[in-house]
Amino acid sequence: MTALLLHNVRPLGGAPTDVLIEDGRFAAFGPGLTAPTSENGHGALLLPGLIEGHTHLDKSLWGMGWYVNECGPLLTDRIENERHQRRALGLDPLRQARRLADDFLALGTTRIRSFADVDTEIGLSHLHALLALRQDRAGVQDIQVIAFPQSGMLGRPGTFDLMVQAMADGADIVGGLDPSGIERDPKGHLDAIFGLAERFSRPVDVHLHEPGELGAFSLELIAERTQALSMGGRVVVSHAFCLGDVAPARQAALLAMLARAGVAIATTAPPSRNVPPVAACRAAGVTIFGGNDGVRDTWTPYGSPDMLTRAMLIGLKNDFRRDDQIAMALDCVTGSAALGCGFANHGLAVGARAEAVLVDAETIAQAVVGQPKRRLVIAGGRVVARDNALC
Amino acid sequence: MTALLLHNVRPLGGAPTDVLIEDGRFAAFGPGLTAPTSENGHGALLLPGLIEGHTHLDKSLWGMGWYVNECGPLLTDRIENERHQRRALGLDPLRQARRLADDFLALGTTRIRSFADVDTEIGLSHLHALLALRQDRAGVQDIQVIAFPQSGMLGRPGTFDLMVQAMADGADIVGGLDPSGIERDPKGHLDAIFGLAERFSRPVDVHLHEPGELGAFSLELIAERTQALSMGGRVVVSHAFCLGDVAPARQAALLAMLARAGVAIATTAPPSRNVPPVAACRAAGVTIFGGNDGVRDTWTPYGSPDMLTRAMLIGLKNDFRRDDQIAMALDCVTGSAALGCGFANHGLAVGARAEAVLVDAETIAQAVVGQPKRRLVIAGGRVVARDNALC
Repeated sequence: MTALLLHNVRPLGGAPTDVLIEDGRFAAFGPGLTAPTSENGHGALLLPGLIEGHTHLDKSLWGMGWYVNECGPLLTDRIENERHQRRALGLDPLRQARRLADDFLALGTTRIRSFADVDTEIGLSHLHALLALRQDRAGVQDIQVIAFPQSGMLGRPGTFDLMVQAMADGADIVGGLDPSGIERDPKGHLDAIFGLAERFSRPVDVHLHEPGELGAFSLELIAERTQALSMGGRVVVSHAFCLGDVAPARQAALLAMLARAGVAIATTAPPSRNVPPVAACRAAGVTIFGGNDGVRDTWTPYGSPDMLTRAMLIGLKNDFRRDDQIAMALDCVTGSAALGCGFANHGLAVGARAEAVLVDAETIAQAVVGQPKRRLVIAGGRVVARDNALC
Repeated sequence: MTALLLHNVRPLGGAPTDVLIEDGRFAAFGPGLTAPTSENGHGALLLPGLIEGHTHLDKSLWGMGWYVNECGPLLTDRIENERHQRRALGLDPLRQARRLADDFLALGTTRIRSFADVDTEIGLSHLHALLALRQDRAGVQDIQVIAFPQSGMLGRPGTFDLMVQAMADGADIVGGLDPSGIERDPKGHLDAIFGLAERFSRPVDVHLHEPGELGAFSLELIAERTQALSMGGRVVVSHAFCLGDVAPARQAALLAMLARAGVAIATTAPPSRNVPPVAACRAAGVTIFGGNDGVRDTWTPYGSPDMLTRAMLIGLKNDFRRDDQIAMALDCVTGSAALGCGFANHGLAVGARAEAVLVDAETIAQAVVGQPKRRLVIAGGRVVARDNALC
């Protein structure tokens, strides 16, 4: 039995206490615990392991030379530019995914849900890279891999077959995207995606950029299929900007529908667009959680492997100023993300996997707004990083 | 004559060169320059001194114990809460202003435009604190002080007299605020503010939170007075959220009006509200620049003394992804801020005051999105900070 004691830490800003970790699990919380090996927390704030709920590890340019972005403004411009640039830049998906996942871990992120592009040019190479990383990180950093037809599926013959193979090869989740805006056939796309989910008994995560009523229609179709297949709790809609576009009464009706169906929302809280409002989602019973989306890739130069910074952006976007509101922003990258993504055994509780991050902050709110140093990161029951760097 | 050479730096990301500083001014740019004292830039990116164009140094809680925010959501809630909390917390405006200005300088900000609250409870104590700091920093960090009737002027007898005294005591700028939303008398408020400006020959800066057509009406009244008094180039409207609320045609007409009148816009680019669009303002000939607004005060826990982070938030809000767009975000905290605030002799040019910041970044865009280390900050012709800390 391996044991580690965290001495004098304040879980979620509560009173100072000790935390005993045994065999990779939290074994006890309370004052006066002992173990042969211990770390002195000096009263710092202890947070659960952070969760990245929506990113693209396979195509980040993190740590490469600076890519000068001269891309056009349309979604289709960005998709086509990326297919060109990944060749021109010699993107190595495994190297890039590992590099970014390392920095996520150094800053306290112990669970990641990542898309992996699947298309007829790269085939399953990105997917296999992420599956290899998933295996490599098992027990320390949980990585969920979504097979994602970024360039479109219905209009590109051969892509659906690749999606079938991706699921057979071990992808965790079936990915979809704008059923009307990109796929041009909402029924056809969603029937295909949910068909795969049923066939392989896997969850679904749909990128939905479609605005206003077009996006709302897609939400309806997704909720209908989720209910018909009894997939509540296993379907995520990412972005769902449409929820921020529609009028309040329509928004409330859509949220009630999503809550009934058990569809969760992933938000990146982009400052430049309307977004699903976090407080309203929670009040309606809809799980909502956060992610970066791409981190420094050909789509965007922004993003970072710091989920507390993403929580800050979620807080800013939702105009969360009070401490109780900012706690909701933190929950978007901890508890609600675990629930929405289906990451098991997460949180600061006896029996949960021993994952935590010790930060220099007085309160949860300060941890979210202050980009504090990560004094310790615990994953797999051991110290994996100190002072923002992997051990 | 004192001289300092910056060797092997890349001004604004251009080719590596040397920069000669003599007697506090940039004396020459070019390869192969010499001076008795030199700093090796190792090819790092050289940016002009950064500018904070809208903040409240006098009431930040920066470096104090964490303030738990439990305030209500209205503008008036926040104003009243602040008056209560500044007593309860024992806020010392000079200590707080100095603390925050120090951290601004350590991160490369050499010019600051700050409001100073003026009201019948604190009188001119905040204003005098900032005037003392302004004098203390002369030659190193330019501080403009705005006399600002945060709690309202027309409805609080005695406040206008304090504003008169503030200007007589040396405030740089006359501050106004929501002429209708708070003051309830747009003509009365703006006549009073512009009357002070005329009497003391000082510029004006009006906080305008008013939404939609109410704010647009205030913009019209401000533009009319600016033109009538030939004050073009000396009037700033801060926030001007209304410009982001109105329809495109109305927005274009308002921007044309502001350009004709010579009214500039200060934006904090809050993710949660509509804002004046940077590219459209620039295209219309309206100077637009950036600021934090309050940094960690009773209004908001957010903000930081890093103007590159503010540039990043401006970029995110405006959906600037291309490198040429992100250069506009940097300009909001450098050149355009100097123009809009009337900070003279700014920029990387022969004859300008020697203020610059050397950052670990390949490109301007990387400097904006990457929160790079500030290897050197030059102000008043000398090195004032290294590696994010004052010397």
